[in-house]
Amino acid sequence: MNKRLTLSLDAMGGDQAPRMVVEGIEIAADRLPEVDYLLVGDERRLAPLLDRFPKARAHAQIQHTEDAVADEDKAAVALRGGRNTSMRLAINAVAEGRADGVISAGNTGALMAMAKFVFKMLPGIDRPAIVAYFPTQRGASVMLDMGANVECDVENLVQFAVMGEVFARNVLGVKQPSIGLLNVGVEGGKGTDSLRKASAILRESVLPMKFHGFVEGDDIGEGTVDVVVTDGFTGNVALKTAEGTARMVGHFLRAALTSSTLAKLGALLAKDALNEFRSHMDPRRYNGAMLVGLNGICVKSHGSTDELGFANAIGVAANLIAGGVNERIKEDLERLISGGTSQDAAVL
Amino acid sequence: MNKRLTLSLDAMGGDQAPRMVVEGIEIAADRLPEVDYLLVGDERRLAPLLDRFPKARAHAQIQHTEDAVADEDKAAVALRGGRNTSMRLAINAVAEGRADGVISAGNTGALMAMAKFVFKMLPGIDRPAIVAYFPTQRGASVMLDMGANVECDVENLVQFAVMGEVFARNVLGVKQPSIGLLNVGVEGGKGTDSLRKASAILRESVLPMKFHGFVEGDDIGEGTVDVVVTDGFTGNVALKTAEGTARMVGHFLRAALTSSTLAKLGALLAKDALNEFRSHMDPRRYNGAMLVGLNGICVKSHGSTDELGFANAIGVAANLIAGGVNERIKEDLERLISGGTSQDAAVL
Repeated sequence: MNKRLTLSLDAMGGDQAPRMVVEGIEIAADRLPEVDYLLVGDERRLAPLLDRFPKARAHAQIQHTEDAVADEDKAAVALRGGRNTSMRLAINAVAEGRADGVISAGNTGALMAMAKFVFKMLPGIDRPAIVAYFPTQRGASVMLDMGANVECDVENLVQFAVMGEVFARNVLGVKQPSIGLLNVGVEGGKGTDSLRKASAILRESVLPMKFHGFVEGDDIGEGTVDVVVTDGFTGNVALKTAEGTARMVGHFLRAALTSSTLAKLGALLAKDALNEFRSHMDPRRYNGAMLVGLNGICVKSHGSTDELGFANAIGVAANLIAGGVNERIKEDLERLISGGTSQDAAVL
Repeated sequence: MNKRLTLSLDAMGGDQAPRMVVEGIEIAADRLPEVDYLLVGDERRLAPLLDRFPKARAHAQIQHTEDAVADEDKAAVALRGGRNTSMRLAINAVAEGRADGVISAGNTGALMAMAKFVFKMLPGIDRPAIVAYFPTQRGASVMLDMGANVECDVENLVQFAVMGEVFARNVLGVKQPSIGLLNVGVEGGKGTDSLRKASAILRESVLPMKFHGFVEGDDIGEGTVDVVVTDGFTGNVALKTAEGTARMVGHFLRAALTSSTLAKLGALLAKDALNEFRSHMDPRRYNGAMLVGLNGICVKSHGSTDELGFANAIGVAANLIAGGVNERIKEDLERLISGGTSQDAAVL
């Protein structure tokens, strides 16, 4: 039997909160019987919801607060003035040892600022990053940074590679994930100075890391590597471009399959296959990004997700905790620093 | 009747050259009877091809050379040693007034280096950029830079906006194209310093430019703006990510529609609609990127394109020449510099 663990949930964050949070627990309860929940939020709204969802009720207790971070709040404002918000108290619960990890579907900037303030950084990590995972032709891959750091230097990229590899092992279940640095070409001389230096360090690293080298934008959808490492600007643009392209293709497919009676009949016959196709790329299946590099497990759910997506984010958090993701990252960083080549030591 | 014009073609550049070049002329000849062609390449291979394609033969003459740039040639090497290559001689023909524009499906780096060396820059432009266009939910949009400049400053971005707008007017036929700066969020404070400064300049510009502000990655596929302005690193990653995502979605759709007898039957009934869907996003329809900012018209065709794609690149070049794209860019730049706010003048 798996060890019991507790997740603290910002019950008020997200467009469909708190309903989708409680219903997300209800869905996750069957898959993850070893998980308990600390629901931080407005008791007057949460208690009636728990009455409707018996499995959630069996696994959750409420920590009441009336305050919540708004979507439009600036991170700095939320950090200063939001000490009694559901988001902040959910983070605090982890720092106080009452929970093993926190999940929020609320304001990303506020979550990053609060989690960084409360958890602090892992030793050896300069900046936190956001790691997301997404479908590819070969299954799924992870990418970081998705937008926490607009500009990154060599050390950041090397640290992202280490953190991304550990995340991929835990969330994708790949034994030895391959790592690629996102660039405008695969040849050695391409891209910025930082990318070329980071590539040299990763290639010579003492870690048993499967470093593939540079990858290009189309390698993301191909699934050429398990972990795509990039700065937060490029990662944010790439992931959103992929989402927008998938929606555009879906839009044209729908238009085509409703363009004539024959097409509609064809779509009806192929209904099960088309549903399977849609489900394969359903963003809810890939919901749950980690704020990695912090001395505490913090998972960000998409703000617009529903209960299925939130249940998925619960699964991601449970995997990360069970796999000891932060301990693994610390071990890898120590090996990289103590056993690295002279070049590594100079940079890290 | 339209004014006659001449395009010089690097007949040896591209995976399927020279056949697809000659056959591309054959296809374009019906649509563009006013265009003549200077085919620069190996006469022993070109002459027999012209015998097979009578319309191409009627509109083309051959300039013989045995030398050609190889795909793997470094730009600097091609520039120094490639003075008799089909690519270089095709560019020279424009500089010598024997043609109005050049098209090549060969080595992009070599083409950029040679065209920059022979044509020089337009007055007021610091760096050339690559402008491509692509399908969106609302039709088509253009994006620049697609990879000529890995790092860009404020002036580059502002100049890209001016050039992209003129390109969009000519190639998309939009009267007043809207312009967006690619960023990680739409709020004013997002992104790098360069992006925020470029946004301020474009917003205050004296040009009758429809500046939308910041856009995000998913706005590319949505078609939120007609012109997406970004640095060459981000643009290259975004376009390739979109291509890779479209291929991934296509891969899953094919898998779904061949997964059962019922699905296959459905796909058969919807065949015409599915073909229409595929054709809508066929990359050949969007073949023909311009190296913009140079004092000469230079169009880059995708290296792997076939005759349909090459015919499309011919159409792009003809539109750019007929629309006087470089004259329009020069006019806009002069207005921007002479009539700009004090802030513009300081930056440009």
